[in-house]
Formats: sequence, C-alpha cells, structure tokens
Amino acid sequence: MFLRGAALILPKSRRLFNSSSSHDLASTIAELNKEMEFVFGEAPPTSLAGSSESQPTDRDSQSISVEKIANESKLTHISTKGEAQMVDVSHKDISKRVAIASCKVILGKKVYGLVSANQLAKGDVFSVAKIAGITGAKQTSNLIPLCHNINLTHVRVDLRLNPHDYCVEIEGEAASTGETGVEMEAMTAVTLAGLTVYDMCKAASKDIQITDVRLEHKTGGKSGDWSREK
Amino acid sequence: MFLRGAALILPKSRRLFNSSSSHDLASTIAELNKEMEFVFGEAPPTSLAGSSESQPTDRDSQSISVEKIANESKLTHISTKGEAQMVDVSHKDISKRVAIASCKVILGKKVYGLVSANQLAKGDVFSVAKIAGITGAKQTSNLIPLCHNINLTHVRVDLRLNPHDYCVEIEGEAASTGETGVEMEAMTAVTLAGLTVYDMCKAASKDIQITDVRLEHKTGGKSGDWSREK
Amino acid sequence: MFLRGAALILPKSRRLFNSSSSHDLASTIAELNKEMEFVFGEAPPTSLAGSSESQPTDRDSQSISVEKIANESKLTHISTKGEAQMVDVSHKDISKRVAIASCKVILGKKVYGLVSANQLAKGDVFSVAKIAGITGAKQTSNLIPLCHNINLTHVRVDLRLNPHDYCVEIEGEAASTGETGVEMEAMTAVTLAGLTVYDMCKAASKDIQITDVRLEHKTGGKSGDWSREK
Amino acid sequence: MFLRGAALILPKSRRLFNSSSSHDLASTIAELNKEMEFVFGEAPPTSLAGSSESQPTDRDSQSISVEKIANESKLTHISTKGEAQMVDVSHKDISKRVAIASCKVILGKKVYGLVSANQLAKGDVFSVAKIAGITGAKQTSNLIPLCHNINLTHVRVDLRLNPHDYCVEIEGEAASTGETGVEMEAMTAVTLAGLTVYDMCKAASKDIQITDVRLEHKTGGKSGDWSREK
Amino acid sequence: MFLRGAALILPKSRRLFNSSSSHDLASTIAELNKEMEFVFGEAPPTSLAGSSESQPTDRDSQSISVEKIANESKLTHISTKGEAQMVDVSHKDISKRVAIASCKVILGKKVYGLVSANQLAKGDVFSVAKIAGITGAKQTSNLIPLCHNINLTHVRVDLRLNPHDYCVEIEGEAASTGETGVEMEAMTAVTLAGLTVYDMCKAASKDIQITDVRLEHKTGGKSGDWSREK
Amino acid sequence: MFLRGAALILPKSRRLFNSSSSHDLASTIAELNKEMEFVFGEAPPTSLAGSSESQPTDRDSQSISVEKIANESKLTHISTKGEAQMVDVSHKDISKRVAIASCKVILGKKVYGLVSANQLAKGDVFSVAKIAGITGAKQTSNLIPLCHNINLTHVRVDLRLNPHDYCVEIEGEAASTGETGVEMEAMTAVTLAGLTVYDMCKAASKDIQITDVRLEHKTGGKSGDWSREK
Repeated sequence: MFLRGAALILPKSRRLFNSSSSHDLASTIAELNKEMEFVFGEAPPTSLAGSSESQPTDRDSQSISVEKIANESKLTHISTKGEAQMVDVSHKDISKRVAIASCKVILGKKVYGLVSANQLAKGDVFSVAKIAGITGAKQTSNLIPLCHNINLTHVRVDLRLNPHDYCVEIEGEAASTGETGVEMEAMTAVTLAGLTVYDMCKAASKDIQITDVRLEHKTGGKSGDWSREK
Repeated sequence: MFLRGAALILPKSRRLFNSSSSHDLASTIAELNKEMEFVFGEAPPTSLAGSSESQPTDRDSQSISVEKIANESKLTHISTKGEAQMVDVSHKDISKRVAIASCKVILGKKVYGLVSANQLAKGDVFSVAKIAGITGAKQTSNLIPLCHNINLTHVRVDLRLNPHDYCVEIEGEAASTGETGVEMEAMTAVTLAGLTVYDMCKAASKDIQITDVRLEHKTGGKSGDWSREK
Repeated sequence: MFLRGAALILPKSRRLFNSSSSHDLASTIAELNKEMEFVFGEAPPTSLAGSSESQPTDRDSQSISVEKIANESKLTHISTKGEAQMVDVSHKDISKRVAIASCKVILGKKVYGLVSANQLAKGDVFSVAKIAGITGAKQTSNLIPLCHNINLTHVRVDLRLNPHDYCVEIEGEAASTGETGVEMEAMTAVTLAGLTVYDMCKAASKDIQITDVRLEHKTGGKSGDWSREK
Repeated sequence: MFLRGAALILPKSRRLFNSSSSHDLASTIAELNKEMEFVFGEAPPTSLAGSSESQPTDRDSQSISVEKIANESKLTHISTKGEAQMVDVSHKDISKRVAIASCKVILGKKVYGLVSANQLAKGDVFSVAKIAGITGAKQTSNLIPLCHNINLTHVRVDLRLNPHDYCVEIEGEAASTGETGVEMEAMTAVTLAGLTVYDMCKAASKDIQITDVRLEHKTGGKSGDWSREK
Repeated sequence: MFLRGAALILPKSRRLFNSSSSHDLASTIAELNKEMEFVFGEAPPTSLAGSSESQPTDRDSQSISVEKIANESKLTHISTKGEAQMVDVSHKDISKRVAIASCKVILGKKVYGLVSANQLAKGDVFSVAKIAGITGAKQTSNLIPLCHNINLTHVRVDLRLNPHDYCVEIEGEAASTGETGVEMEAMTAVTLAGLTVYDMCKAASKDIQITDVRLEHKTGGKSGDWSREK
Repeated sequence: MFLRGAALILPKSRRLFNSSSSHDLASTIAELNKEMEFVFGEAPPTSLAGSSESQPTDRDSQSISVEKIANESKLTHISTKGEAQMVDVSHKDISKRVAIASCKVILGKKVYGLVSANQLAKGDVFSVAKIAGITGAKQTSNLIPLCHNINLTHVRVDLRLNPHDYCVEIEGEAASTGETGVEMEAMTAVTLAGLTVYDMCKAASKDIQITDVRLEHKTGGKSGDWSREK
C-alpha cells in the first residue's frame, strides 16, 4: 500500500499522518487538502478553515516548512490537485533560448585506454555518441512526457577524454527561438551521448557509470541568464 | 584539428605520435595500422611486419599496455578498422535475459520537500517518471544507434525517496528472451525516468543532478550472471 | 472488385453506375469525371460537356444532390483528382488555436468498481492514461498521415469517473499558435487516453467500449469559434 | 485535492471515507490498506487485522462488493501497491494470437455523400485511413504505455460504407506469434483509421463522431478464444 | 480525374477503356472486375462469365499480356480487390534471412574532393552516414507502410570513395531470423545513408544525385538465395 | 585500418600521405592540420606556419586544388575540426521555403504492366507510396542526423507512370516558413515513396531500381531561387 509504504521511508518529522492524532477522518482529509494546497500554491476554500486549526502545531516539529517552500517555488508540472500537467506556454514571450548541460562517463583505466586508442585512430566512439546526442535532443518531447515539442535551431554535443579521472566529459548545447526553455533538450542530448558511450564500451567493463548529469548554463526566458558557479 | 587536439589532453605516455620520432610517414602509418589492430584484435598482415620493428620501444613508456588490453577485452562495437559497427547476434544462443540498472536524482533539501509532499498526496511525479522509464526502454534501439531492436517481455521502473541524501533512487529492470542482452534497455529506463523527475522539478531548482547511472545486475547470455559488489 | 463491391452496399438511389443505363463507355467515363469534379469543386473541361448531357436525368432520383453538397463544403484533404493531399497552409494567418475534444470509456459495473477503487487509492490508471493522451497529442502528425506537424503550446487531458453510466469521461485540450487547427491533436489525445484505460482494464472484461469521440469546442482560424450545442 | 474531488463524483454508497465515522486516523489508514489489498488480490498482513474490525459493517451498504470483484478479476496493469505496471510475459506460452476490433465513424448525411462519391471515384479516403490503421498498429507499444513491443505477423484494416447509419464501419485485425495478446494492436488500428477518416472529413462537418470502438474476437493465449455475442 | 488522367499517359494498346467499345456499363464493370481478377490471381465468379465474352478480342492488341503476367507473378501487397494489404506471414517458415543492397551518391569532382579530404582527416561524413543507415534500417517498418516490424540481428553499412566516378558507393546488409525477408531493411539502410551524405554535402553543390538503389543479394525464405548477375 | 584503406582507393595524386616524403611525424601532423583547415575554412594558428613550408610543393601535382575548393564552398555540416555538426540557424532570416525533388523507380516491362493495371483499377500502389512520402517528409529530422526539426506547411508527392522507360516518376515538394531550407524533406519524401513502390513490387522482380534521386527546384533562403537546367 502506498500510504503505508511512504510512511516507512520518511523520517518521523515528515509524517503527515500520525497515529497519535485523534481527529476524525473528515478533518483529516480537510487537513490533507489544505496541506497540499499550501504546497502547490492555491488558497484553501474557507469552508475548510475551521477544521484545520490544529494544523500548525502538528507540523511544528517538521524540519522543512512546506508553506515556506510554497512561497518560494513550486513544481510547475504538478497542478493544484497534485496531478501531472503540461505547462501552458501560449502566453509566454518569444525569446532566443540556449541551454548547456554536461555529464561524465567514468570509464575506468582499462576502458579509457581502449577509447582513447580508438579516438586517436578513427574516432568513431565519439562520432557515434555525438550523433546519438544530437538525434536524441530532437526526440526530447517524445521521451519526456510533459515536455513541449519545439523546433531547435541548433544542437551541439562535444566529447573529450579526461585522463585524470579516466572519464569522458560530455557537453551539450541546445538552442531555440520560442516560448519555452531548452534545458531538457540539452540534458537529453548529453544523457543519450553518455548512454551511447556506455553501450559501445560495456563489453569491456560493467563498472562504467554516467554521473553528474546537470545544467551548466541557460539564457533567455523570464528567469533570464544563469550559469553554474564553479 | 582532431589529431592535435587529442594530443593536448592525453598524458605524454599515451601519445602515439611523438615529434621526436624520426620515422618517415610510410612507417608511421604502418605503425598506426599495427597498433590499432593490436587494440582491436586482428593480426596485422605480414607485409607490414618489417616497417613496425621499432614499435615496441616506442611504447615501452606507456602506462597502459594496449596489447594487454586487447587480449583481455575489446570494444565490440568498433570494427578492426576502428569504425562503429552493430554486433551481429545471428549466431548467438537464445536465452532469458534480465538486467537491472539504477540511478539517483539528487534534488536538494527544498525540492525533496516538494516531491515528497506530492508523493504523499497524489504521487504523480513518480507515476509520470515511471511511465517515461517504461516507454523509454521500449524506444532504446531508436535512441542508441548500435543497439539491436528487440522485444521486451518485461520492464519495471521503481522510484523511492531517500531522505538521507534528499534524493530519488530509481531502479529499472528489463527482460527479454533472445540473442542479445538488455543492459541498455535497463540503463535507458532509469535515465529517462531520472530526466523526467528532473523535468518536473527543474522550475524549483537548477542544482538537481542525475548521478550514478549504472548496471546493478544481469543474467543470461554467454557471460552469465553478474551482480555489482556492495 | 472494388466497383462491384461498392455497388452492393449503396442504396439504389446512390448508385452512379446503373446496369439499366445504355450509355456507351466513353460517355460513362465522361459522366463520372464530371460528377467528381462537381463534388470536388473543379469545372469540367469543355471537351467533355457534350457527352454528359444526359447526366441530370440520371441523378434526378438521388436523395443527396452532390452538386449542392459541393457548393456547401468539400473534403479539403482530397484533390480535384480524387487523390489524398495535405492542405497547404503556407498562406494561412497565424492565430492562437485551441480545440477541446472528449470521449467516454464504458467500463461496465464490475470494471468501474475496480477503477474507482484504484482511483481512490493511488490513481495510477488515470495518471497513465493522462500521460498517454498528452504524449499521443504530440505524436499526432506521425499517426494521421495528412496532418501537419506543429508545435503545441499546451496539452491537457482530464479523466473523471461517471458513476451513472459506469464510464470514464475524458476531455482533452490542445493549443497552438500557427497556421493550422489543433482539432486532430485534441481528438488524438482523448482517443489514446481512452485506449490506455482500455488496456489497463481489458483483463477484467472484454465488453469495454470507447464511444462518443468528438470535438467539443474550437477557437481560432478562419472559421472562428465553435462550441457543440448541448 | 484528489480525495475530496473523488468524493464529489462518487455515489454515497461508494464513499470509503465517510465523515460520520469516528475512527482515528491510524485505523483509517489501516482500513484503506486492507480495502486496497482486497481489491488487488493480496492478503492483508495480520498486524492490521484488529484495527479493521469494523470494516465489514462500513461497507454493507455498498452496491458493489469489492471483495467479490477481487476474487473474479483484477486490473493486471496495477500492482498490489496500486501502481501502474507492465505485465511480465516472460513465462507465458508462445501461441498464435489473433484479435479483431471494430469501430464506426458516424459521418452524417452530408459528409457521407462526399465520402461515398470519393470512394466510387478514387477511393483515397479509405486508402489513407487503411494505411494509417496498419501503420498505427505497428506503433501500438509506443502509444500505449504498458503495452509490450511485439512483432506483428499480420495487420488488416477494412473500411466500408454503411448507408443506413451514414457511417463508415471499420474492422481491424492483428496477428502475432508470441507470449502476449494483440487486442491493443487491433484496437489501435481501427481507432487510428477512424481518426484519419475524421481528419479527412472534418472540414465538411464538426459533428462527426467515432463510436463503438471495441473488441470483436480473439484467439490464442491462456484465456483461449472469444467472440462478441451478436 | 483519375481515369482520364491515366488514359493520357498510357500507350493506346494499354487502354482498357476505349471509347469505340459499345458495351453498356454493366458489362464494362464486369469486364474490369474480370480483368483485375486475372491480373491479381483470383478466378472470376461464374456469374460474370457471360458478360465478359468480348474481352479477349478487346485485349488482342495489348503489347503486354496481363493474364500471362498474372500466371508468372503478382503484386503480393495488393489484394484481389486491388487494395493495399500487408502480407500475412503467420504461416511462413522461420529461417535465417540476409539481404544486401547498394546505391551510389554521385558527388561531382568538386564535392568529391571535399569529402575525400574529410575522409582522410576525420571521416565524419561517412561515420554519420553509416549511423543514419543503421538507425534507419531499424525504423523500416515505420517508414514503409506495409512492411512488417521485425527484429534485426545485424545491420551493416559501408561507404567507400570511388574516384573514377567521383561518387560514394554504399553497401548495406540486414539480417534477421524470422518469417519475412529483410530486403526493405537493406534498401532503407543504403538510401538513408545516401540521403545523409547528400545532406552533409548539399551546401557545396545542388547537382548531387543518389542513383542505382538496388538489391544485390539475398538468402533465406521460400524463394531461396539470389545474387545480382554482374 | 582506415588510413591504409583510404590510400588504396585514392589515385596517387590525391594521396596526402606519401611514403616518399621524408618529413618527420611532427611536421606531417602539422601539415595535415593545416590542410584540413584550408579545406574547412579556418586559418591555421601561426605556431604551425613554419613546419608547413614545404606544403605547396607537396600538392603541386594534385588534380584538385583543395585551397581553391575551400574558397568556393565548404561542407557546412563539418566543423573546422573535421567533425560532424548541426548548422546553427538561430540567426538566419525567416523566409518562405519551397523545395522540389524527384526520382524514378525503374520497374521493367513486366512489373510496369502489373502496376499500371492496378493503377487503372484501384490505384492503391500510388496511394500508399504517396502517403509514405508525405509521412516520411514529416520524419526527416529523425532520419537524417544533422537535419533540423521544422514544421512543414505543405508536402506534396505525385507519382506517374512513364511507359517509355517502364518506370514510375515521382515528384515531391516540401514547404516551410523558417530559418532553414526544406531540400532534405523533399528528397526524403520522394525516396520513401520510391522505396514503398519497390516494396509493393519486389515480389514480382528483383531488378527494380530507384534512380536519379535529385533536387529539381528550390526557393527562399539566402542562396535564393534555383532550378535544375533541362
């Protein structure tokens, strides 16, 4: 059961349903309704105000104040009902958007030797991974359910050998002119390039890992420019 | 230029082309040919044997012995010519294949609070990510260029909140009955589930990272069963 | 044979080829040409005018006047030659487009009980169907041959239980800014959501039906706003 | 909020959470756990037995006995935790599978005239719809999230005009040899053929509806042969 | 109009509808039915035998005897009704299938120089084209409407420079174990590799052509082995 | 090995690596770097200028002057490093773009008879091929790795029988309003239509060839209008 299972892996201070509470069910549901509406940013209807009086006390011990979180940010892909939703970008401004993401494929010493030897000779490991990243970026909206399908004006994927960590460093860039950002396209590009490096090397080792998949930079959109601090 | 660029990021001991060597171009090409054939497992033709005499000396200082590597393993997706290739599995035995992969999505404290609140309420973040993982596994051969298209008898993706690291742990399993393994399907499943969690949370933070994408377990095929050591 | 087969299922008044007619073949073909051109809106060339003199009489008994139909509307995806065609929207105005479609999945009492129980507990039947609808809307142009590929600014799919008819009611909305409407995207969204509900319930009953797949509302474009009358 | 919303559309006898009940929250959760386990076929752990004593009384008035349902059938795509899952077919027997589905596209008199005229002349409306159905059947596993990707040995889609209801009747058949049924492939084939007819006719009328999408016949698999009663 | 249009581009001896014939429409349709059934291999029903008596005379002048053709071969993707169909391979024997296809991309002297220079340096033109060919082969059943979706055990694409014709020669091989051949997969592989070479070179010249796309070799299946004569 | 293999199929005058040259390896690599940079349009860094002094002499005998080529045109999909790249079209002007391509499917006399008979009767061979071409054009960016994904405002595919060459002539047109051309969409449309004709006829003959796949006309974009000379 979901509710029970969730309780098991949450620290006590996070448990919303506590067996020592003596509210009847009606007020409990009202509380839960209210809680969720705080989290996801919609004011609770007044008819529920009375029954949730004891709520603040109940959460005093919580290490994370969900109301505070709600004021600062919210999950835009989750509706006030807690359901998944695609964001409506019909009214957003059109601007030039660029995003850069990166990841690493940790090869280990042995596989690193094989890949760098191939890279010197013909370079097909990196060529194939690059193509997989570029092609994958164009498929992003078919892979990430709530992503908008958009036209990319540019995709770039670069791979380089890092001999210190015996890894491949991958950087991907996506660009578009439109109402919505291209972070997911850049993230998908580096991830699929990384999986392709993994695929081509997996016969030589099962210890390869893809790690540090993350956004490095973005420009455009309402939130403006951002770069990861070094 | 590729050759120059590669030289810059390789430690000196890995450089195959060394400006202090005084061979003429013909023998250099022969050497490179031979080197690659050692790496990728095909004996060099005898007509080149003479011109590559000085080769062993040239590589004495290399920290990684490529010949040794070649004896132990090779990149099966790279031909003896250094080109990318799909592995021919026509003659492989049919067996039940299972692979389990995993990854983590590091959310940070704030986003973790939002996701765990949604998970208690409606659970759509995990539901959407799970569907993206299952759907993505079925698309693996369209995303990873040298992957075979196969029929999966099962795909499973599970997500759970880890309150200690403020992360989501994702485990994916793929199964098939056929000539080729399902590691890439399991790897693709967890990666796309992770990217979907990222997508649904990215409005709340730009510091989310996907990490530790790796194989955990596999059964079936010529190489038999394998599990990652804890 | 196609022509014979068609004759069998058409009421007599609709039969264009009637065995009691005594025209020779040349005039028959000319007639057919003319008929089709009336239907699809292109004037017949003058060289055929003479041989089709007897046409009006031949169609007097038809319950549907095809010329009248041609004046009122035509199949835009069919050329004047009767062949399928994609509509050229290059010269259409760009406007905000929204379409809303709906359908019902008739579950029957038993399956309705199972779905509503799941909906109370975890809600994954509706979550998965919603994702299938959203994802499917983005795939519309790959599924409907003559549909334009467009960028959607929004897709919404909602499902609700209707206890009176033991059915699931599905409503889907698609939005775009461009030269062409989004009716097909909304229709595809609800249909794929409905098929997904069917898939998840089919083990419990073979009597489930998807019904009343239809457009409810549209805005934008040359034909303006439209809503289904209640 | 989900829980509240669900309550609104369920008849009183179906409400699991009733505000007149005076249980504390702990026992309510235990009850919900137990309820769900009955529905989805897994015995509740003994530690919960005591707290759910009053359960039978609580459900006496329910018009649908969920325990009874659980004994007769279950939603195979929903796990005992209420989560969506792909069915593991690894251990199922391989057999020849065939499924036939059907649907109707209600055109109305005016559009019916246009389509039947095209059908007599060139037939491209039906040709395009047929191709969309066949192509769509091959895409089923990319459209229906929990569907297995399988190899189809045959897909057939037939359309015919029904002059009595001014509709197009579509029948689709899918066949495969394998561990899993092909009902969804047949259902997807007729649905996409129907949507394509809709697309090609929608300029002429907004009242077209797709209806009666349903399974007609299946053979193969553990549950054996089945045909819809006339 | 289709019927008229077709007549215009066929030599007189091929015209089935001849304006000098004086049959009434009923017998004309019967004739056409019979003709098509001869062509596509199904015996006409006896009830039509009488009305088609004059048929042989009508076709005496035809340079191609369609009856003879029907005896020798038929279009398996066309039903006896003249409609497109997917071939049912449910009952075909499973065998190892291999097909090899080839094509040429005529570059012209200038572009040939650029491609061969790139090929010497980094080789990415051929690497990308090779990947496009391999990936495309796996997509064949989504591109060719009546093609079965099958699992390929191997795809190989090789490109080489031909300095005599200033062209790129492409050879593609597909292999599978199953009920249906892999000619289309090999044909699609070389075609998409060729289109990719075209794409990468098109900025340098508009005179590039892809030519001689054809099957070279096949093994397996009922018709056995075949190789193109040199 | 790639380098050796390339040498074998190039005429002597094209060989950049010549065994009679006595440069040491450092200067050879510098030369190759410089050569590639000339070809692909980026000035070599000054540090390499000295070591490449002997370059002009080395290439005097080349039949194709690569510097001259570089001045006239370059492979836009290849970076100055010789690697594949997607062209960044972010800064290109938006204009109406149209491209027309064509190809021929050489059927031979026997198959030509079958196709023309079908074309007279039902026309499904051409209808299916047309749909495959239109659908394929919309898939271009998923098939050609470095192609941008764009929205097409129109796709047209026409097929006609050419009785003189016993071939099918296919013409395809694609249109878009945007930053990038639609040549590849038109080329992909005719190629996939041609492959579909091949597929539907291949049971009747193995000698069918697709040939003369080429651009016929384009408008829009910086390079303006262009039509193939007759």
